[in-house]
Amino acid sequence: MNPKQVAAEKAVEFVEDGMIVGLGTGSTAFWATQKIAQRISEGLTIRAVASSASTEALAGQLGIPLVPFSGIDHIDITIDGADEVDDQLNLIKGGGGALLREKILARNSSRFYVVVDETKRVHRLGRFPLPVEIVPFASNLTIHRLQELNCEPVVRMVQGSPFITDNGNLIVDCSFKEILNPVELQQQINLIPGVVENGLFVGMPTAVVVGYGDGTIQILEPQNRSGHS
Amino acid sequence: MNPKQVAAEKAVEFVEDGMIVGLGTGSTAFWATQKIAQRISEGLTIRAVASSASTEALAGQLGIPLVPFSGIDHIDITIDGADEVDDQLNLIKGGGGALLREKILARNSSRFYVVVDETKRVHRLGRFPLPVEIVPFASNLTIHRLQELNCEPVVRMVQGSPFITDNGNLIVDCSFKEILNPVELQQQINLIPGVVENGLFVGMPTAVVVGYGDGTIQILEPQNRSGHS
Repeated sequence: MNPKQVAAEKAVEFVEDGMIVGLGTGSTAFWATQKIAQRISEGLTIRAVASSASTEALAGQLGIPLVPFSGIDHIDITIDGADEVDDQLNLIKGGGGALLREKILARNSSRFYVVVDETKRVHRLGRFPLPVEIVPFASNLTIHRLQELNCEPVVRMVQGSPFITDNGNLIVDCSFKEILNPVELQQQINLIPGVVENGLFVGMPTAVVVGYGDGTIQILEPQNRSGHS
Repeated sequence: MNPKQVAAEKAVEFVEDGMIVGLGTGSTAFWATQKIAQRISEGLTIRAVASSASTEALAGQLGIPLVPFSGIDHIDITIDGADEVDDQLNLIKGGGGALLREKILARNSSRFYVVVDETKRVHRLGRFPLPVEIVPFASNLTIHRLQELNCEPVVRMVQGSPFITDNGNLIVDCSFKEILNPVELQQQINLIPGVVENGLFVGMPTAVVVGYGDGTIQILEPQNRSGHS
């Protein structure tokens, strides 16, 4: 089994009957959604919310019962991938462009499980360019302000046109090389008018499940509690 | 002359030939836009950007030359109103619903003049409900998170339907009664995923021009420099 699938399937063990489950987006979260559908076919009873239009479509195809956000007031557990995970379990997310909705799900979930393969572990965040979602209005000015934080911002393109998020915004990929202080940086970025959200997830995971090429997994929890199985 | 007009016309004296001028939104900024149009008819040469669709329409009617944001890399001066101004010249803005675009203009302007009548002066911000712009996606969850900051959030309505901003978002008016620490509060609010921007303008004005009912004005500058004429 590939390490993404191993990690994702481990995290799905934490899903219990009656839960409201947040479904992530991307190549690792894909495996979690598949596994949840399998457990539903075996009798698991849950309701789900999706972090993107693509995940919503996938869940629909797999027969996972989706509920509208207006019908819930909390989420019990969300399982999602990440682009980088540092030693303090801070994350960079947003490579797939769904960072805002993913962050809303994570922030409103009692438990937030992150599933990655071993290539996503880093000592310090920043090698992966930080995705920042900005409104299209006066975007060139907002990009100047991002640049002042010492990064190289690049508007994400797809087939020659700007990539547009599910919320009608742009993504700017900001190459910082090394992020020394994620707490401070997320505040600085989110205080720039025109920024909707950034891909830094600081202090959010309940646990990070890392899948290895040899089929093993490692569960990392905040405050240096961790186990390898 | 009414105090809004007196204040607005004073601020327009700071506009000079060749400047890129940001036009605010609302009943006081209206008078500034009118006065700028008058000065253009008398020979002033400027280019302008507008903070809302309504201001853009007004400027067009008045013959003020508008430029797209993509054609500029800075703004020389922005003149705009406010709903509250405290003793440190921090502001609450957004009563008109254009807070995000207004904040983008203010943040990207070399000089930012605020024009108000005397009724907008307060010792401490918060009697006026703080407008917060949020994305429609999962808005009920985002509103819960705002509530946790000890305010009463109310989704702004217009004729029985939610008010939609120029950016396609909702406005939540958050009644805090008294805002003890605007610096901290703006950070807390903007770190909530789903929040696009809030109406606190902290440490932004170059000066605040206050118009009084007796026809006088007062110019308030940061760091306790002020003069009354």
